[in-house]
Amino acid sequence: MSFSRLLPPAFALVLVATVAFGLTARPARADEGMWTYDNFPAAALRDKHGVEITPAWLDRVRTATIRLANCTASFISAEGLILSNHHCAASCLAQISKEGQDRLQDGFIAGTREQEVRCETQYADVLMRMENVTDKVTAATAGKDLKTANDARKKVLTQLEAACEKAAGTKDPRRCESVSLYQGGQHFLYHYKRYNDVRIVFAPEYAVAAFGGDPDNFQFPRWCLDMSILRAYENGKPAATPNFLKFNWDGPKENEVVFVTGHPGSTDRQLTTAQLKTQRIETPFWLQRAAELRGRYIQFSKTGAENDRIVADPLNSLENSIKVRRKELDTLLDDSMMAQKVTAEGQLRSRTVSSGGADPWADIEKAMHRDEELNVPFTFIESAAGFNSALYRYARTLVRGAAERAKPSEDRLREYSDPALPLLVQQLNAPVPVYPARDKLTLSFGLERMREYLGPDHPLVRNLLAEFSPDELAASLVDGTKLGDPAVRKQIWDGGQAAIDASTDPMIRIARMVDPYARTVRKQYEDEVEAVVDAGQEKIAAARFAALGTSVYPDATFTLRLNYGTVQGWNEGGTQVVPFTQLARAFERSTGREPFRMPDSWTAKRDQLDMNARFNLSTNNDIVGGNSGSPMLNAKAEIVGLVFDGNIHSISGSFWFDTAKNRTVAVHPAIMRVALTQVYPAQRVAAELGLAK
Amino acid sequence: MSFSRLLPPAFALVLVATVAFGLTARPARADEGMWTYDNFPAAALRDKHGVEITPAWLDRVRTATIRLANCTASFISAEGLILSNHHCAASCLAQISKEGQDRLQDGFIAGTREQEVRCETQYADVLMRMENVTDKVTAATAGKDLKTANDARKKVLTQLEAACEKAAGTKDPRRCESVSLYQGGQHFLYHYKRYNDVRIVFAPEYAVAAFGGDPDNFQFPRWCLDMSILRAYENGKPAATPNFLKFNWDGPKENEVVFVTGHPGSTDRQLTTAQLKTQRIETPFWLQRAAELRGRYIQFSKTGAENDRIVADPLNSLENSIKVRRKELDTLLDDSMMAQKVTAEGQLRSRTVSSGGADPWADIEKAMHRDEELNVPFTFIESAAGFNSALYRYARTLVRGAAERAKPSEDRLREYSDPALPLLVQQLNAPVPVYPARDKLTLSFGLERMREYLGPDHPLVRNLLAEFSPDELAASLVDGTKLGDPAVRKQIWDGGQAAIDASTDPMIRIARMVDPYARTVRKQYEDEVEAVVDAGQEKIAAARFAALGTSVYPDATFTLRLNYGTVQGWNEGGTQVVPFTQLARAFERSTGREPFRMPDSWTAKRDQLDMNARFNLSTNNDIVGGNSGSPMLNAKAEIVGLVFDGNIHSISGSFWFDTAKNRTVAVHPAIMRVALTQVYPAQRVAAELGLAK
Repeated sequence: MSFSRLLPPAFALVLVATVAFGLTARPARADEGMWTYDNFPAAALRDKHGVEITPAWLDRVRTATIRLANCTASFISAEGLILSNHHCAASCLAQISKEGQDRLQDGFIAGTREQEVRCETQYADVLMRMENVTDKVTAATAGKDLKTANDARKKVLTQLEAACEKAAGTKDPRRCESVSLYQGGQHFLYHYKRYNDVRIVFAPEYAVAAFGGDPDNFQFPRWCLDMSILRAYENGKPAATPNFLKFNWDGPKENEVVFVTGHPGSTDRQLTTAQLKTQRIETPFWLQRAAELRGRYIQFSKTGAENDRIVADPLNSLENSIKVRRKELDTLLDDSMMAQKVTAEGQLRSRTVSSGGADPWADIEKAMHRDEELNVPFTFIESAAGFNSALYRYARTLVRGAAERAKPSEDRLREYSDPALPLLVQQLNAPVPVYPARDKLTLSFGLERMREYLGPDHPLVRNLLAEFSPDELAASLVDGTKLGDPAVRKQIWDGGQAAIDASTDPMIRIARMVDPYARTVRKQYEDEVEAVVDAGQEKIAAARFAALGTSVYPDATFTLRLNYGTVQGWNEGGTQVVPFTQLARAFERSTGREPFRMPDSWTAKRDQLDMNARFNLSTNNDIVGGNSGSPMLNAKAEIVGLVFDGNIHSISGSFWFDTAKNRTVAVHPAIMRVALTQVYPAQRVAAELGLAK
Repeated sequence: MSFSRLLPPAFALVLVATVAFGLTARPARADEGMWTYDNFPAAALRDKHGVEITPAWLDRVRTATIRLANCTASFISAEGLILSNHHCAASCLAQISKEGQDRLQDGFIAGTREQEVRCETQYADVLMRMENVTDKVTAATAGKDLKTANDARKKVLTQLEAACEKAAGTKDPRRCESVSLYQGGQHFLYHYKRYNDVRIVFAPEYAVAAFGGDPDNFQFPRWCLDMSILRAYENGKPAATPNFLKFNWDGPKENEVVFVTGHPGSTDRQLTTAQLKTQRIETPFWLQRAAELRGRYIQFSKTGAENDRIVADPLNSLENSIKVRRKELDTLLDDSMMAQKVTAEGQLRSRTVSSGGADPWADIEKAMHRDEELNVPFTFIESAAGFNSALYRYARTLVRGAAERAKPSEDRLREYSDPALPLLVQQLNAPVPVYPARDKLTLSFGLERMREYLGPDHPLVRNLLAEFSPDELAASLVDGTKLGDPAVRKQIWDGGQAAIDASTDPMIRIARMVDPYARTVRKQYEDEVEAVVDAGQEKIAAARFAALGTSVYPDATFTLRLNYGTVQGWNEGGTQVVPFTQLARAFERSTGREPFRMPDSWTAKRDQLDMNARFNLSTNNDIVGGNSGSPMLNAKAEIVGLVFDGNIHSISGSFWFDTAKNRTVAVHPAIMRVALTQVYPAQRVAAELGLAK
């Protein structure tokens, strides 16, 4: 649950890109700031809080911090044990479940090392090096027109990634990813060590992991044991990870300085006002579709226990995203926020743009109008919201993968370049369950809304639905396809274009038919929006660097950041919120009905547990979705919390940092100790963490 | 389907009230304008179009125009025959259906007069007189503080209504309703003759009435036979209505002047910019709930034919409202619209407000912030979105009705005053079906969202859901109540407060428990929002009258209006849309699957029908939801169309009139003639309309 504003998959285009700081975006004061490790404001920290952070501290923490596919995590033992949130392992728990054995709801404890089960689509990355390649990227695009420059930028990034991975060799291989910071003001190659065998070791029941469910999500006070324990493997054995982080089981004091290391997914604090207004228009479009899908899932879940089980994981993710977007929209419609952005932008703009000269803000504004026009077809066709189905996504990967692999790596769509293929193939071939009933639901929904928004006379819609209802088409595709079988997917993938051409699989046929439409709208978007915005951003970034240097931090990009703050509550409408909760109140608040039900494992032991044990805590760290699973550290780099959420005000952090009210919410170590030593039969894990029962 | 943006029931408060014209709102040019019959711009019409409209013409048309509970209609025979839309009769068709006999889907034809079936909750009002009572209302509030004035205004309106009905006597009784025009600048009593026995005579199949369904809703070109025929009865016999309107079956020519008489429901063209911004915030809240309910209905409808049938009518209404609100939100987020409003408001305001003096715009803006705070509790508790269930609405009417009837009429909540009671009792006692499965769905949904938005720790939520899940509570209330039986409702109503106090019906108990919470938030809203807004509006109206007099028209209030326009298409992105469609294309566009399926009755006769018969037409009349069912008339007051929708641009008509693109969509008389004489066995009705087969 909670802070897993899931990132777009690596291959999804993000429609609204981001732009550099307004001039009056003062160098971060308060404890605001998602700092890159190469630009951490150690001096400011020392001045304000009297805490010294050394380069060695930074290296140690960096190499113990993990990026999962969708979250953050950290090493907590020398044998590859990993701490993250329950909601970060939710997909894995759903994948290893089956009818009558619901790991997501009931939890999972591996009694022996042999019982640790692989999470087929998960991986763990550790950032080993940050290489600045700004000059190379700039040189590749210099002097070119916008569209050509945009294509050239993609090409050189693929080339740089491939060269980096080749140089690392195969003995200690690296995954190299290009990273754009400061809205294109800096380009980096991030060198990761990747563990692609990650197994689940421990997870509590959903009822206590997400106690309070969606109603309590993004709330504090809170009582969630939102934790899971995984393990990284190499060559079939637990990975050696001597540089792990230790727990301080007593946790931090109020006002103590604490650090959050992790991968904040995405912030939009530096968008131009034109881009914010576009979000104001496009967010309700997303929310309406999400709300309807939520209703369909909920009603479907009432038709039987198994149906309830198979939609639980996507429904939880969806509800989390709905809450995020809903509060983001509130912020976007907040006149005081917009007024501050207008002022800041006006200052930098008037300083930068000479009369009659180039005006990147105006260029971006024009591109945003085009963005608004393209948003509906792009969403339904290229982002495939009209074909909302796991089976369709397989088909589309196969169809595109065949076409793209026939080209040189750097000429492909970026998500099919050679460096991107290993993970793509891992996920394509992963033997994870596919649920036909669920796919029919989502696919029918997608088709029906696509017809509504594109209109029944759109040629693609006519092609698809001239003779079938959305329900009929969805049923015939899902029932007819064989792509639920990983072996079939592998065979088609390995067969390349010939296998695609020869396939009579109905889902492959549909994906083949849709692909030209999708490529067309994608190219329109890239040429008419992305190319203009990227070029505009670069110019604005240059103006901003001239004014402020790197005394500010870049917007979040699901890359490694460190921030500091202190343990504290806040003032909510005149009432001071205390920064710690205790176990006793969780039992008092339990109604016995989902989502306010303490599970039997806890109620059975209730009399033996310390009711004063601290459960969750709040701090003023500056985080955002993607930071889920981040370790919270004290000045000694000991774990004193496990970040899993923010309070409701934290959602406005997408656009600005509200010092007074934006708070991070974490699991307290004390409740994790209670869980591992008193509630669950988890002696093996507890011992590995140095806990005697 | 379509243009039935259903009005709030008479007793529902509308959260955002409306305010007077900005100064630069130029006297209506083009063919814009929803004119009251006492202020129709006959001279302007003569100058522009050379058409003469006499007072006799106006009287004739006025007394042939009907206000239904939710729509407009007109008399079309001397024996009470009424023409309206299919979607205006949809609730009636659903009410007279049962499992295995679906009148909404399959249509209805009364072969004899005896087979005409009463629509239990329907009525037909004809406006007989408009009495200006502005002076009396103003006198009642003069010199009072805002809250007291607001209470006094309600009281005097109830007194005036009661006195008017008493004066009319019982021989030819009148229903007297107070009407506020020009945002409180004028107050009227409208005297209606009411027919409360309305029966269904003819309706085609849903498939052709709403051909194209939701995807085509608010679109043109279009092919919908959105018609129904009803009949007014008095004393058990067809009403004598000699002043009926005749058809011109050949319809109008392109560019011919046409008139629409009817009851546009609600426009917000004169809101202050502060009020518009509040709508911008509150509309997404509505849309998200509506979209989720849509998803729940759709998924429920897939679980069986009977379940499909029982949600069809509310789902259609909901989808229509979603489309309206969605496009309204687009307009509210349109910077050019807002800029024009800001300019107009600034001019009137700077002319009106002296430095340091009273500023009604500022007062309203402050009240709007309070409105935004109260919106969530008001919506869930007082508007009962948290208790979304027909059975709960009965319970609440009974609980409140008992408490209110114990007071003098003018001290009651207005919807329980003596003049309001006859209709309220008719609807309470109407023997219409209640569907427990549907009520459980909507009630569970309401409770779940109320918990989400008010929070699990809100005292009302805690009271309700401390021991039950929303599903459990909904099931126990719906299964336990006896209020589905009209006799039980009548008994409790007649038993007054004693019957309420003694009742052990679970729905009555819940309504009793909720009522204090609901009254509290309603009073907060009335005192802190409504009172301030109404007073501010009166001041702005006075300023506007000083500048413009009545050379402009008041916002729509579901009261009788007349407007003129011409038959024409529009230019859509460079393509000229032709204003007429023909029968041939409907068949070509039929896929055989809902919602693009011409029914068997039509396909069976296809070879015998004139494929060039005109089907629908578009005009530039200025209408809005509530005008559904309006007759479209030529200069001779002959029916040349049946209004049922607008094009997609017409939805922005809530806020401004887009001369270039806002179009009305109507059923052409030619297709009605084909239907009545060639397709359906409707000889009896056809003969009454003067049509030989």
